[in-house]
Amino acid sequence: MNKVPYKIYLTEKEMPTVWHNLRAKMKEQPDKMLHPAKLTPCEKEDLLPIFCSNSIDDELNETDEYINIPEEVLGFYRMYRPSPLVRAYWLEKELDTPAEIYYKFEGNNTSGSHKLNSAAAQAYYAKQEGLTSLTTETGAGQWGSALSMACAFYGIDLNVYMVKVSSQQKPYRKTLMETYGAKVIASPSDTTVCGRKILAENPDTGGSLGCAISEAIEVAVNTPKCKYVLGSVLNHVILHQSIIGMEVKKACEIYGIQPDIIIGCAGGGSNLGGLMSPFMADKIEGKNKIEFIAVEPASCPSLTRGKYAYDFGDTGKTTPLIKMYTLGSGFMPAPGHAGGLRYHGMNPVLSKLYHDGYFTARSYFQNEVFEAAVKFAKCEGILPAPESSHAIKAALDEAEKCRVEGKKKVIVFGLTGTGYFDMSAYESYVNGSMTDKAPTDEELEAGFASLPKI
Amino acid sequence: MNKVPYKIYLTEKEMPTVWHNLRAKMKEQPDKMLHPAKLTPCEKEDLLPIFCSNSIDDELNETDEYINIPEEVLGFYRMYRPSPLVRAYWLEKELDTPAEIYYKFEGNNTSGSHKLNSAAAQAYYAKQEGLTSLTTETGAGQWGSALSMACAFYGIDLNVYMVKVSSQQKPYRKTLMETYGAKVIASPSDTTVCGRKILAENPDTGGSLGCAISEAIEVAVNTPKCKYVLGSVLNHVILHQSIIGMEVKKACEIYGIQPDIIIGCAGGGSNLGGLMSPFMADKIEGKNKIEFIAVEPASCPSLTRGKYAYDFGDTGKTTPLIKMYTLGSGFMPAPGHAGGLRYHGMNPVLSKLYHDGYFTARSYFQNEVFEAAVKFAKCEGILPAPESSHAIKAALDEAEKCRVEGKKKVIVFGLTGTGYFDMSAYESYVNGSMTDKAPTDEELEAGFASLPKI
Repeated sequence: MNKVPYKIYLTEKEMPTVWHNLRAKMKEQPDKMLHPAKLTPCEKEDLLPIFCSNSIDDELNETDEYINIPEEVLGFYRMYRPSPLVRAYWLEKELDTPAEIYYKFEGNNTSGSHKLNSAAAQAYYAKQEGLTSLTTETGAGQWGSALSMACAFYGIDLNVYMVKVSSQQKPYRKTLMETYGAKVIASPSDTTVCGRKILAENPDTGGSLGCAISEAIEVAVNTPKCKYVLGSVLNHVILHQSIIGMEVKKACEIYGIQPDIIIGCAGGGSNLGGLMSPFMADKIEGKNKIEFIAVEPASCPSLTRGKYAYDFGDTGKTTPLIKMYTLGSGFMPAPGHAGGLRYHGMNPVLSKLYHDGYFTARSYFQNEVFEAAVKFAKCEGILPAPESSHAIKAALDEAEKCRVEGKKKVIVFGLTGTGYFDMSAYESYVNGSMTDKAPTDEELEAGFASLPKI
Repeated sequence: MNKVPYKIYLTEKEMPTVWHNLRAKMKEQPDKMLHPAKLTPCEKEDLLPIFCSNSIDDELNETDEYINIPEEVLGFYRMYRPSPLVRAYWLEKELDTPAEIYYKFEGNNTSGSHKLNSAAAQAYYAKQEGLTSLTTETGAGQWGSALSMACAFYGIDLNVYMVKVSSQQKPYRKTLMETYGAKVIASPSDTTVCGRKILAENPDTGGSLGCAISEAIEVAVNTPKCKYVLGSVLNHVILHQSIIGMEVKKACEIYGIQPDIIIGCAGGGSNLGGLMSPFMADKIEGKNKIEFIAVEPASCPSLTRGKYAYDFGDTGKTTPLIKMYTLGSGFMPAPGHAGGLRYHGMNPVLSKLYHDGYFTARSYFQNEVFEAAVKFAKCEGILPAPESSHAIKAALDEAEKCRVEGKKKVIVFGLTGTGYFDMSAYESYVNGSMTDKAPTDEELEAGFASLPKI
């Protein structure tokens, strides 16, 4: 038996009490968010009609490397954190690889993913600010579930706009959110101007995160004591998710683990950004040579085939403009099963780092991702979320490379969540009916045509 | 902040390496299992056609208080154990009770329950014995999922007979088992003599655990290198589940926690028996005065309204005769949502202890159980299984009693699993369509009429 246990749990005393703000260590800052009409950098007052005040402070903070986690949020975290850093002994054996494989497992909570880390903070901020309700969107349903739980805990009403194709694939996600007291509306819907417009143009659309965001924002700005919250993409979300990386770093220090490769799936970037944050800060300072790998679905390849440009965060073109890798807010991805990765853009911090060459990205098709997922499930006893399984697939490929080359590397990947509400996806994999499709060059061009001309 | 953390995780070094065999400490042994034809106590050779050899050894062992867990099974346990003993600080606050509430959470694994503790052992035994396949039954699907995972891990084929009403309520349980490579058949089915007979008599039946057991045994005894395994009721299952109680006891010793009340839901008795095992041994020796409470559904009240008698374990009347609290193997419970509690009988050790006054039992209706479940979910961030929620309801009632009486008691309950595959049940609770029904006296009498005349 190796000295490292199967699962490393930090004690509550060892748990980090600060979030890590990577921007404080970046050599160049990401380009600033712009007001969509004025095209000037967004100030706090520009964002206040939409977002909670403390979230904006987190969003705009480029200088403090460590930000204290409010005591109330730490209390919430203790319900389900620390999450374990697991040494994948059984998987290593199955792969017959000299690589050491670790995964940070964020799925051991009812929302089923890491999303609760930011939901806890944002719902608390809303409570502090005296709001009585929030709106949001959800793709796979993980974020919506997480925010439902946090809102139930803090006593805040919640309207969730759920991407229609996901709500059809995952009816029980809706029930879960409703059990926690949230109201769930399939998007695009006829409850908003923006939703009615999208439906008029494309009545059969399965929706997208971009559409759902537009609807949620429209409701928030037109409702008293209500604001909008987002589960990925923005910098304050990455900040809250840095609790993942902070815990991993602490565990690595305690057990003398030195990662060579860190892998995360990337939709809007919340998990990868949070996982890599403190490690990337060290890399920027030349303290490590870790290879970071972002993994995305072939059907929605914002890093691998997108453009680095200013774009809207939503299909309705109502958000501030964000400089990011994007497929265009008008891009409509094929209805794959990794709903959490079906977003047209990418977090600005990650986009800037990717543009500057700090990490690489790759994409996979669904079937190879689910093949990796099932192999992992049988060895390690956890049925992974389709999103997380993208990271598994990359970890398997890297471990195989180690086997072929006879090299021992330390691989750490983010296992963001569980697939318990994704059984229709597994069903289609098991019965052989799963298909997938990368966008054609023409489809990409059509998406890029939606980019704002600035 | 109290000195006890929110979640107590034993380190891997602190994890128990033995199972606890309560029978070694009982003042009187449970009456022996009888051969159904000869009516003599079952010897090992009587059981070998049905069960794995090592399971039989565990079943018949009345003398060794501690039994070493095989190293390979400990390795499997490390994939998902230790499970946390959680101090329910948020629930205590919500209830405004002086009681200290703890729960042992067994749901943090893909099977979603404690069932994996015995599945790991029994699948390993089958592998050791050179078997190539196993059969079993499942009600709620937790046991079937657990055994599917264990069989995938050890490379053994598995046929699962799933109670028809459960397979209709929980189609994704079937997909989960199939993802792990198992074959799932809704029971009663036309694949067995016994199933066809039951269908002929009652074509519209939703099935029962008793029916499914008959079918699984029939297939096992007629297939080479195949045996039958069971996820509850029998003494070797309680033995394997004693890992739960052993971990709780160790955690209590480390943190100086002295339980006054220990609560568990009880279907076949595997969770309650495992949780109470080492604590009950101390009670028998006069070392503690813990009050143990079994909780069952009003629709299937084997302890609270059953008879203490010899009965078959299955509807087809093919198993050895077991002395237990039973509603009669012919009893057909109403199709409630706690599928894991819909068994007509109760483990013999628990039955004997209950008969001798060592613990009490109570029953609840579904709606009050789900009300407790949702309250718990909102405070503690875990959506509980319907089965586990029976224990939650009793814990809430005991905590309320403490509040009214101004008494501080230490309450420990078993949170056996999560409700992620029970969303149709939650849906019916949330939308107000949940109904329930206790058997009438006439229905009970009809069940008792099926008891063997010996």
